[in-house]
Amino acid sequence: MCETCGCGDTAVVPIEIHERLLSDNDRVAAHNRAHFAAEGLLAVNLMGSPGAGKTALLEATARAMAATRRLVAITGDLETDRDARRLRDAGIRAEAVTTGSACHLDARMIHHAVHHGAAGDADTLFIENVGNLVCPAIYDLGQAVTVVALSVTEGEDKPLKYPPMFRRADLVLLTKVDLLPALPDFDKDVLVQSLARVMPEPRLLDVSARTDAGIGEWVAFLEARRAAHVAA
Amino acid sequence: MCETCGCGDTAVVPIEIHERLLSDNDRVAAHNRAHFAAEGLLAVNLMGSPGAGKTALLEATARAMAATRRLVAITGDLETDRDARRLRDAGIRAEAVTTGSACHLDARMIHHAVHHGAAGDADTLFIENVGNLVCPAIYDLGQAVTVVALSVTEGEDKPLKYPPMFRRADLVLLTKVDLLPALPDFDKDVLVQSLARVMPEPRLLDVSARTDAGIGEWVAFLEARRAAHVAA
Repeated sequence: MCETCGCGDTAVVPIEIHERLLSDNDRVAAHNRAHFAAEGLLAVNLMGSPGAGKTALLEATARAMAATRRLVAITGDLETDRDARRLRDAGIRAEAVTTGSACHLDARMIHHAVHHGAAGDADTLFIENVGNLVCPAIYDLGQAVTVVALSVTEGEDKPLKYPPMFRRADLVLLTKVDLLPALPDFDKDVLVQSLARVMPEPRLLDVSARTDAGIGEWVAFLEARRAAHVAA
Repeated sequence: MCETCGCGDTAVVPIEIHERLLSDNDRVAAHNRAHFAAEGLLAVNLMGSPGAGKTALLEATARAMAATRRLVAITGDLETDRDARRLRDAGIRAEAVTTGSACHLDARMIHHAVHHGAAGDADTLFIENVGNLVCPAIYDLGQAVTVVALSVTEGEDKPLKYPPMFRRADLVLLTKVDLLPALPDFDKDVLVQSLARVMPEPRLLDVSARTDAGIGEWVAFLEARRAAHVAA
C-alpha cells in the first residue's frame, strides 16, 4: 500500500525535507555514476507509462544485443517480479526491486542492488523504472542515458501534459508502431511538435517489439552513447 | 517541475508527516462527500494511466448522457487545460486543475474548485485524475464512485503490479476494445484472473469511446450508483 505517498504536497510536507531528500538522492546518483563509469558499464534509465511496452522493448533488445553485449536489468514495480522473470526468460540477468509504496526508483535502491551484485560483470545495465510518467522524472539514478517509452496508443499530447519526463530525456522511443494501421487518427506530426516544445534536443525513434522494427537503430543509438560515455 | 515529489520516501520523509497529510486529506474528503450528498451530486473519481482513454471516455459519456443529466468535470494534469477544453467541446462544463508538481489530485484541490463554483447546478461530477496508476489511488476525493480505466494495450498483468489502484475500484473499464482485433495476444481471462486477486468485488466492463460499445452499460452502472447513493 502507498500509505506514505506525499508527492507534491508542498502545503503539508516541509519544503526543506523535500530538498534534503532530492539532494541526498543526487549525491547517491553521482556516486552510482562514478561507479558505472569506472566499471565501463552503460546504465540506461528506461521510463514510461504502465503498459508503454518497456519490458517488451527490453526483450527485443536482448534478442538483438545478447550475443555481443553482457546485459543485465533491474526492474522496478510496486509488487511482483514479473518483469524480471520475463527478462530472464529473454536471456538477460535481471533483478526485481519491489518498491511497495514508492512510485519510482531512487538512486539508493539502485546503489543497493548494484552493491549486492546485480550488475555482475555486465557492460550494459537497463533500469526499467516503475510505470509512471510523473515521479520517476525527477529522481536521477546515475544513468548515462535517459529514455522514455511512449506507445502509439497514449496520445500525441503527452509531452505537453507531462513535461518534466520528456524535458530530461535523451531519446523518446515511440513503441508499438505495429499498431498504427489500427489507429487512423494518430498524427505523428503533432507528437513531433509536442516534443519540440519540451525537449531541448528532440529525438524520436519508432520501434516495435513485436516486429523488431527500429530495434537496430535503437541498438546503434546505445552503441553511439557507449562510445561517447567511455570516451568521456 | 516536480521538485517537491517525495512519494514513498519513508526513509527521509518522517512518517508522522505522511500520516498527518493523509488524515488531513481524508478529513477534507469527508467534507466533500457530505457536501456532494447534500447537493444530490454524484461524484466519480476516474483514474488510469496516461493514455488510458479517460478523456475520450468522458466525451463518449457526454454524447450518451448530456441530454438527460447535468454534467460537469474537473480535470487534473501537471500542465495544460487540454482535457478540459476537449470536454467543453463535447458539451460538458469543465474546469482544469493544473497540479504543477503533484502527481495526483487531492481532496483540497477538489474542495477549492467546487467551492469556487466548478459544480454549478450539476447532478453528475466527473473528476478526471492525473494519469498515474500509483499515487492517485490513496487520495480519497470524497467521490461516491471510484473507477479505473485500463486500456487493452496496457497488459493483463497491471492489476497485480499496481494493486492499490485496483483494490479500491468499484469498476474497471476496459477501454479501447475496438483495438482488440489488432492485439491477437490479448487474453481477457488473464486480466479477469488478475483482477480477482486484488479486487474484493471484481467488476469489469468493456468499452470503446470510438464505437460507443459498452457506453450504454457504463451509463446504466452510473444510474444504478446514483439510485443507491441518493437512497443512502
